[in-house]
Amino acid sequence: MKVVIIGSGAGGLTAASTLRKYSENAEITVITLENQVAYSQCAIPYVIGGEIDSFEEIVMHTPEYYGDRGINIITNSEVVEIIAKENLVIYRPKMGHLIEKKNLDVTLSYDYLIVATGGSPFIPPVSGTNLNGVFKVRTIDDGVKIKEWGERCKKAVVIGAGAIGLELGYGLKQLGMDVSVTEMLPQILPRSLDPDMALKVQSYLESVGVNIVLEKAIDEILGVKKAETVVVGNESIDTDIVILSTGIRPSIKLAKKAGCITGDMGVSVNERMQTSIPNIYAVGDCVEVYDGITGLKTVSPFGTTAVRQGKVAAKNIVGREAIFRPVLNSVVSKIGELEIGAVGLTETSANLNKIDVIVGRSRALTKARYYPGCKPIDIKIICSSDGKILGCQIIAKETVAERVDTMALAIAKEVRCEEITEMEFSYAPPVSMVVDPIVLAAEDALDKMNSS
Amino acid sequence: MKVVIIGSGAGGLTAASTLRKYSENAEITVITLENQVAYSQCAIPYVIGGEIDSFEEIVMHTPEYYGDRGINIITNSEVVEIIAKENLVIYRPKMGHLIEKKNLDVTLSYDYLIVATGGSPFIPPVSGTNLNGVFKVRTIDDGVKIKEWGERCKKAVVIGAGAIGLELGYGLKQLGMDVSVTEMLPQILPRSLDPDMALKVQSYLESVGVNIVLEKAIDEILGVKKAETVVVGNESIDTDIVILSTGIRPSIKLAKKAGCITGDMGVSVNERMQTSIPNIYAVGDCVEVYDGITGLKTVSPFGTTAVRQGKVAAKNIVGREAIFRPVLNSVVSKIGELEIGAVGLTETSANLNKIDVIVGRSRALTKARYYPGCKPIDIKIICSSDGKILGCQIIAKETVAERVDTMALAIAKEVRCEEITEMEFSYAPPVSMVVDPIVLAAEDALDKMNSS
Repeated sequence: MKVVIIGSGAGGLTAASTLRKYSENAEITVITLENQVAYSQCAIPYVIGGEIDSFEEIVMHTPEYYGDRGINIITNSEVVEIIAKENLVIYRPKMGHLIEKKNLDVTLSYDYLIVATGGSPFIPPVSGTNLNGVFKVRTIDDGVKIKEWGERCKKAVVIGAGAIGLELGYGLKQLGMDVSVTEMLPQILPRSLDPDMALKVQSYLESVGVNIVLEKAIDEILGVKKAETVVVGNESIDTDIVILSTGIRPSIKLAKKAGCITGDMGVSVNERMQTSIPNIYAVGDCVEVYDGITGLKTVSPFGTTAVRQGKVAAKNIVGREAIFRPVLNSVVSKIGELEIGAVGLTETSANLNKIDVIVGRSRALTKARYYPGCKPIDIKIICSSDGKILGCQIIAKETVAERVDTMALAIAKEVRCEEITEMEFSYAPPVSMVVDPIVLAAEDALDKMNSS
Repeated sequence: MKVVIIGSGAGGLTAASTLRKYSENAEITVITLENQVAYSQCAIPYVIGGEIDSFEEIVMHTPEYYGDRGINIITNSEVVEIIAKENLVIYRPKMGHLIEKKNLDVTLSYDYLIVATGGSPFIPPVSGTNLNGVFKVRTIDDGVKIKEWGERCKKAVVIGAGAIGLELGYGLKQLGMDVSVTEMLPQILPRSLDPDMALKVQSYLESVGVNIVLEKAIDEILGVKKAETVVVGNESIDTDIVILSTGIRPSIKLAKKAGCITGDMGVSVNERMQTSIPNIYAVGDCVEVYDGITGLKTVSPFGTTAVRQGKVAAKNIVGREAIFRPVLNSVVSKIGELEIGAVGLTETSANLNKIDVIVGRSRALTKARYYPGCKPIDIKIICSSDGKILGCQIIAKETVAERVDTMALAIAKEVRCEEITEMEFSYAPPVSMVVDPIVLAAEDALDKMNSS
């Protein structure tokens, strides 16, 4: 069995490793545009900010590591076509930076193909984005360039106040720059948090000196040889570096041209990660998925999603049962000392989708109140009018990710608030409160439910 | 409505506060043997060890606090009889330490009675336990006495290697003493951990200089004016202080004499925490509960259990629906830097109860491996032969409690290993691994299941 995988991100490489785990004989080839593989995209802001020492550290494995395991990785090469009818892919080695010669094209046959082409950063359609000093942040190369350029900078503007934009904004601030993060929408972290919770994160960022500019879309970047000023709304911000963190768009061109059905959000796949062409699978940022709460099509551009999809695709290819379920989009970010996590439906999204919800809140502590080092924790839970947990947002300086995981399971298993209040939470003064903050939030929701 | 509560531990006081929350008019009286109420028993070892500055800090509220909320707390008083037929309790104020005069008896009538009499430390039936320098550890008074006596001590022996014994052992070591913790059984933490996991905790304790003596029951304590030597098995250990941490026995005498049905493990209650006498409820360490996995009667002597039971009893008394479910006994302890957590069935207990289980293990990290400060984490999950999660044990230097909570919910909702591997875990390099350690353990179990 020959399997070709296009793309060496989390989805592609997880698929490769999973195929190897379950099939000794599969011929596995990964074709990638990049030089480095198996690095953590999510860690790039932390290297830039200096929390992680170097980009070398975030590279988990070399192509040779995979080679030793019988996974052939072809680096610096672009797949130019998939000929689905003949089960062929054609790729072209990148010679140097620009030279691409058609006569160097290589044709590979496959029994199964996995499209893991990821996404490419969205570049706002304004003038000046091609100036020197303007960067996107996606690959390790982008990170290296930002870090190098940043050494000369005193001022920075980050466009986009999603998690990556804010992590970067905080990181650049740590390097001593004056930092502004601008956002088109009226709040930061609009995808994950409701305005009330976002405000808490904004206050923290402002308290450490990061300037947040809301409700202003980028108009243009001005500069002579390099970016010098960012114009957002009626405001001009002088800067030495501009980082565009304005989301990514799924890379679906190859799959679409090959005849795979695609939707607005990416390549269409079934719950086995199979495209409309039965022996072509697709995983990672290039596919569209379903929202576990609203049932609507959505994206899930997270490393963890790609990993789970890569496993599902590989298992199905080797004949094992595995399905990928609609997503709740569990997310967590660490910005400075603050951990911010969310899962499932926000109140904002409930309103947009006309879903009646009840909200429960708690402000409590991460440990017993008398235990040294206990920290405030804010929890907001969103539940349906009959009490089913639909979403949760958590902000604290510790133990956020694991609590989000508990709530992700609660949502997946359709647990009601009442069950949360009956549920066991482990307790010891150095690590928790005798009544868990999640229970307090659920009790608050229940009280509202009973009094309404 | 008059409600009398006997006992001011977590169960009794939670019942009182919950009654107040839902009923403005209830006359609520709490009768307690103690002088201080509303303190954290679980925190006593941490005050002794100096991690918490003083015993004052672990007292959450004064009797006056409750008085201001219309909850009358009668301290330093012993209930001597419940006359169930007449809905009366008789209590006797303790005058000084020993003087108890029958003619000071007070009679109180009730509509509902809540028995929250807790438990008393088990004192091994050997000679020498009445010597000076031998302590039990249950109340804040016990803690104060240990702390005072401990100031003169260079050597300490703790009898019993449960969580409290080990927390105390570590605490006394921090005060500079030579410490031995002895245990009758062949492992530490026998109630919560399997031997393989217990060994990891033992190694840590030994690495910080705590001497662990296994498979040796206490034979006697020798000494002239005060405890000088503890004899366990064939070993004599010289010491300046002996702490008996050999478990507690439910205090059921009053309820039994009143006519409530009791079992081997405590006062019998239904899922509403109602005893066999309809207007008498019982909560906390004095009741017996059912094990959520084996269905057998068991005890659940934890503050969190008492809190949940207190709420259930109070809600039922005011006419609200609430039930207490069979327990999974989620526990967590922090011993030095190490957090140890467990929930549900152990492999040992599965074997004893002839339940076929499959075990999955992972040794991973609490953060991305390249992120500074990531720490090893060991997870063991126990599942039924068809893959349902039945138990979990976790050891790491952070984020154990919250992961135990996730697994407690997984067990309660009868989640299978396969679902765990499909489940969403939030990810960011500073706070988690891209594949969660819990997923790795579940995958290990699944692999074993599929290959067996």
